[in-house]
Amino acid sequence: MEKAGPDTAAHHSPSTQQSAPTGAAPDKPVRRRSGGRAGSAARRGTAAIQQSPWRIPVNTDAPTEPLTAEGIAAIHDAAMQVLEEIGIAFLNPEARAILAEAGCIVEGEIVRMGRDFIIEMLSHAPSEWTLTPRNPDRTLPIGGRHILFGNVSSPPNYWDMTLGRKVPGTREHCANLLRLTQYFNCIHFAGGYPVEPVDIHASVRHLDVLFDKLTLTDKVPHAYSLGAERVEDVIEMVRLAGGWDQAEFDATPHMYTNINSTSPLKHDYPMLDGWMRLARRGQGLIVSPFTLAGAMAPVTMAGAVVQSLAEGLSAIALAQYINPGVACAFGTFTSNVDMKSGAPAFGTPEYMRATQMTGQMCRHYGLPMRASGSCAANVPDGQAMWETSNALWSAVQSGANFVYHAAGWLEGGLIASPEKFIMDCEVIQQIQRYLEPTICATTPEDLALEAMREVRQDGHFFGIQHTQDRYATAFYQPFLSDWRNYESWEQSGAVWTPERAHTKYLQILDDFTPPPMPDSCRGALEDFVIRRKQEGGAPTDY
Amino acid sequence: MEKAGPDTAAHHSPSTQQSAPTGAAPDKPVRRRSGGRAGSAARRGTAAIQQSPWRIPVNTDAPTEPLTAEGIAAIHDAAMQVLEEIGIAFLNPEARAILAEAGCIVEGEIVRMGRDFIIEMLSHAPSEWTLTPRNPDRTLPIGGRHILFGNVSSPPNYWDMTLGRKVPGTREHCANLLRLTQYFNCIHFAGGYPVEPVDIHASVRHLDVLFDKLTLTDKVPHAYSLGAERVEDVIEMVRLAGGWDQAEFDATPHMYTNINSTSPLKHDYPMLDGWMRLARRGQGLIVSPFTLAGAMAPVTMAGAVVQSLAEGLSAIALAQYINPGVACAFGTFTSNVDMKSGAPAFGTPEYMRATQMTGQMCRHYGLPMRASGSCAANVPDGQAMWETSNALWSAVQSGANFVYHAAGWLEGGLIASPEKFIMDCEVIQQIQRYLEPTICATTPEDLALEAMREVRQDGHFFGIQHTQDRYATAFYQPFLSDWRNYESWEQSGAVWTPERAHTKYLQILDDFTPPPMPDSCRGALEDFVIRRKQEGGAPTDY
Repeated sequence: MEKAGPDTAAHHSPSTQQSAPTGAAPDKPVRRRSGGRAGSAARRGTAAIQQSPWRIPVNTDAPTEPLTAEGIAAIHDAAMQVLEEIGIAFLNPEARAILAEAGCIVEGEIVRMGRDFIIEMLSHAPSEWTLTPRNPDRTLPIGGRHILFGNVSSPPNYWDMTLGRKVPGTREHCANLLRLTQYFNCIHFAGGYPVEPVDIHASVRHLDVLFDKLTLTDKVPHAYSLGAERVEDVIEMVRLAGGWDQAEFDATPHMYTNINSTSPLKHDYPMLDGWMRLARRGQGLIVSPFTLAGAMAPVTMAGAVVQSLAEGLSAIALAQYINPGVACAFGTFTSNVDMKSGAPAFGTPEYMRATQMTGQMCRHYGLPMRASGSCAANVPDGQAMWETSNALWSAVQSGANFVYHAAGWLEGGLIASPEKFIMDCEVIQQIQRYLEPTICATTPEDLALEAMREVRQDGHFFGIQHTQDRYATAFYQPFLSDWRNYESWEQSGAVWTPERAHTKYLQILDDFTPPPMPDSCRGALEDFVIRRKQEGGAPTDY
Repeated sequence: MEKAGPDTAAHHSPSTQQSAPTGAAPDKPVRRRSGGRAGSAARRGTAAIQQSPWRIPVNTDAPTEPLTAEGIAAIHDAAMQVLEEIGIAFLNPEARAILAEAGCIVEGEIVRMGRDFIIEMLSHAPSEWTLTPRNPDRTLPIGGRHILFGNVSSPPNYWDMTLGRKVPGTREHCANLLRLTQYFNCIHFAGGYPVEPVDIHASVRHLDVLFDKLTLTDKVPHAYSLGAERVEDVIEMVRLAGGWDQAEFDATPHMYTNINSTSPLKHDYPMLDGWMRLARRGQGLIVSPFTLAGAMAPVTMAGAVVQSLAEGLSAIALAQYINPGVACAFGTFTSNVDMKSGAPAFGTPEYMRATQMTGQMCRHYGLPMRASGSCAANVPDGQAMWETSNALWSAVQSGANFVYHAAGWLEGGLIASPEKFIMDCEVIQQIQRYLEPTICATTPEDLALEAMREVRQDGHFFGIQHTQDRYATAFYQPFLSDWRNYESWEQSGAVWTPERAHTKYLQILDDFTPPPMPDSCRGALEDFVIRRKQEGGAPTDY
């Protein structure tokens, strides 16, 4: 039987039907089965839905490369000019001191670095590395041809079909989205908070959400770089959840952070602080400049990519100077604004091309790459899916290794939605199936000449042995798409996609079992949360 | 002032508010402005919506190629074995006689052809050709790097948001979808009937629909190969609409047909009849085997592609023997069934890979390629858009030249929907924008170093000259996507995508002006329709 957390609401225990004291969606009672079934039902696909198995997809498609070799050289040279001549503001004195020691030119908050230094630092950065969470079966290879997907991270708001409106996120919403993160085999890592639980005080929010994340999932976790105390707390909780001693923890990446520069050309204090702490602990480091062309970056896509590279490479150079060989990745988050309103746009043609160009630059620098699923749509409708499809396919086309925000994102990242999460997982499963090389196999059995000789001009292929031997696994099987004809679909209620996704959401929550965790690890986590809450948590003036 | 057709309903005249005597959707009164404004408002984008300009997109992306050189050779060899050993049933005695004369082995209805013959015939087939409709500004280059899009063709049923249900298609529905075909600059050619108008008797249906198509659009038209009389009538109507004499008509392709083989391994009588008639008249010929893996084709995707190639290449060989050098293209329509229900699936991972593999084979044979937009969804929801996005992007990735059914398709081609049409056009516009090489330009102005020097670390790019000089055209501007934040979207009614598309549909119909047509051509068309109706139209026992 799973134990309840220190002061955790009953809502994340599978052994009770009690609802959460705060933040529970009152109109959505969630029944759950009692008992700890080792969390394997979902992985076996025997539960609420028939889903694809857990796997580490390998992207063997040649990437789409809009830049010529001259274009790559021009973007590289421009990024180096930005670093050498304009410089980056490092709003963290410790970071400036380190970079000054490294030979960079520091004037006030501005740091200028020569291209020789950048290239030397990049030479230390591994092109492939691993992330090992508390369940070693969930170890992730980062870089190379691998492409991995994570849940939506950080929206302040939540939307679902029952509410039908946008509300501030709660711990209950957050925990339920973490359940989806764990449940879906196509989701490889747990990003930042899938929704910000604003019903928890900011001083202890990280403690409660990390407790939920580390007990409800066994996938690679993330830490926000939002001040020393939070980062150190999360590091310690991840270590306790995995049962590692300090040396074991430091030996290889078990978690990661993602920092965003404050474009244009700035890194803020807490982001750099977390970045340097995790660099020293040898954990995973992703820097993702949020360069919206026309707003915080040049209106031209090449210019926005140049700025993004300058911002990101400067952070990676810092990390490599601090801990040569530490695991880094470059994240693209370059899109454009609507020039009429200033609103950010996602999944646009410009977004796709910026992602592909960044992929070429990451390969040029030998860095693993992060991209995103994203959209500007406010509800899980057609627009949401064409924008998200554009974003996700551009991640595939760019050779991205991490795909952040791949499931659940709406309104430019301001809303998390479980229906959108489930719809996105249908698309992600299809992408992962698409990447299976067996679809395009051309062995004699695949060419099927004997089958055609058997059927000739007047039969059909349903009943023949060649079909019978393969039909169960020949094609992708959706869990959400409805392939029935109109009449059958109508007779069963004429249910549109988001309503179907909502039903699946309730079924998955009903069926969810958290992954197993040794009592000793759980107890240590509980004790840590209690102690840190007694100490007052983290300061909130960051 | 536009003249009314011979017995055409008032519904396709812009000069009246009268509704159609038959088949008009009574709950959707459509107001239209009077006068003939030369049809240029839509092309200028000054009308109901701000749309992208008419253009001939060039796809400079390297195609996605899942097959190795050995895989291509293996598929080619297997297709040749099918043609040599199993053969194709040609259910048309004239076609069999021609192929016998050409040296093929004819036994009963089965024709076997050697690979030398196929290769020789393919050597006559041009890799690039043109289609010139009555408006020469709409001339289409077929093949090479060009990618062109057409409307949904042939669904028997219609669905829109006002009806909220599936109904048999009418002439009014068909005419309105033809108006969308003409209106959208991103749609290059007019496919088959965008919905089958079952309120018109089958004997004269082709006369009324072609009259509507040729007066409501000036884009490249299509003819069904459904019996000699229909094909000959359509040829004559296209000729009259263009004002060409017989020699001018025959000199270059002005129209095209698409035939589907009757898989497995059969071509039926009327399809072959139309194919041969258009071959002799030097018009465009597309053959698209409908090879559903697991049903009418092998359960393996390579096997389904092999069968598709054998079926298609046999028809192209016939056309090239009849008229060496005639304009041919190979169409892929290979997908898979749901092995649980037998229902066809579209836009699946297997569909995407089959399309890409077929692209490789088309380049191997030097043939222009047709692909499709498609989906299994019954309504214009999220599933419709992820399936259609998958299909459309696979067309781009495969290097397809024609994209059939690109706008308006639902329920595996059994439903045409104006809302889906408009949603698809938003996606197609984005694809065409994506293909503009300027997005990825790396001139010094694109690299924007001076702009970054101006803004440095503390400004933003909105107001600077570099942005002001470019903002109007820097980014794709949607006409249907809503990029506003949730609150603005909610305040203006919280309208989901299909409802927005429905409003656009009504606005476009309201705004629509047919393209100009000389009175002499229109009069000749009218006279022809009257005469052929007096003669009884075409037989209906095909």
